[in-house]
Amino acid sequence: MATNVKYLCVHVFCQTKPGTADAFREASLRNARQSAQEPGVARFDVLQDREDPNAFCLVEVYRTPEAPAAHKETAHYLEWRDTVADFMAEPRKARKFDGLFPATGEGWDYAADATLE
Amino acid sequence: MATNVKYLCVHVFCQTKPGTADAFREASLRNARQSAQEPGVARFDVLQDREDPNAFCLVEVYRTPEAPAAHKETAHYLEWRDTVADFMAEPRKARKFDGLFPATGEGWDYAADATLE
Repeated sequence: MATNVKYLCVHVFCQTKPGTADAFREASLRNARQSAQEPGVARFDVLQDREDPNAFCLVEVYRTPEAPAAHKETAHYLEWRDTVADFMAEPRKARKFDGLFPATGEGWDYAADATLE
Repeated sequence: MATNVKYLCVHVFCQTKPGTADAFREASLRNARQSAQEPGVARFDVLQDREDPNAFCLVEVYRTPEAPAAHKETAHYLEWRDTVADFMAEPRKARKFDGLFPATGEGWDYAADATLE
């Protein structure tokens, strides 16, 4: 039976300096592949703006209130943070949402046997 | 074998007038439940801002270039559009992204047997 949840969804907006988007993308993909394996992380999607390829959005969906802090202690997050520091054209902005739909954890989770890359 | 994709992800930002957030949420949940069943729709998530409960984000992930137009022709979209018209404090804003991670359709899709609500 599905359990209802209201997961924390964090959208992190990143504006990169011209010429750094490819390096930012690669660093963010490395981070996402590992972040998606964290027990507290339901999703960790990486999006690139179609109108402005220097703009990215990380869509982070957390299963527990403790999961965002746990994510920030991982080696892959710290490596990403240090790698992209020089690529940022402006400070990152985060926006926090409650996920209303889907209303179940399994609606947010990557399918158990899904290939992600 | 997983097939690589670069799905179109549309974030639609909706600012509702004070007092209309609950009605907007219910109309949007009705729309999302049906939109999530469209063949061209991989995800149709509904988010509510934690800092400003009058602000919502619809996260729409489309499988094909034709899917957004097909969505806008459905009865459930048209009902939603007409229902929420009077709730909007300002025109909706949409931002379009390429989904870079996950890189596969199955990474975006709701799991086949998932209960969504």
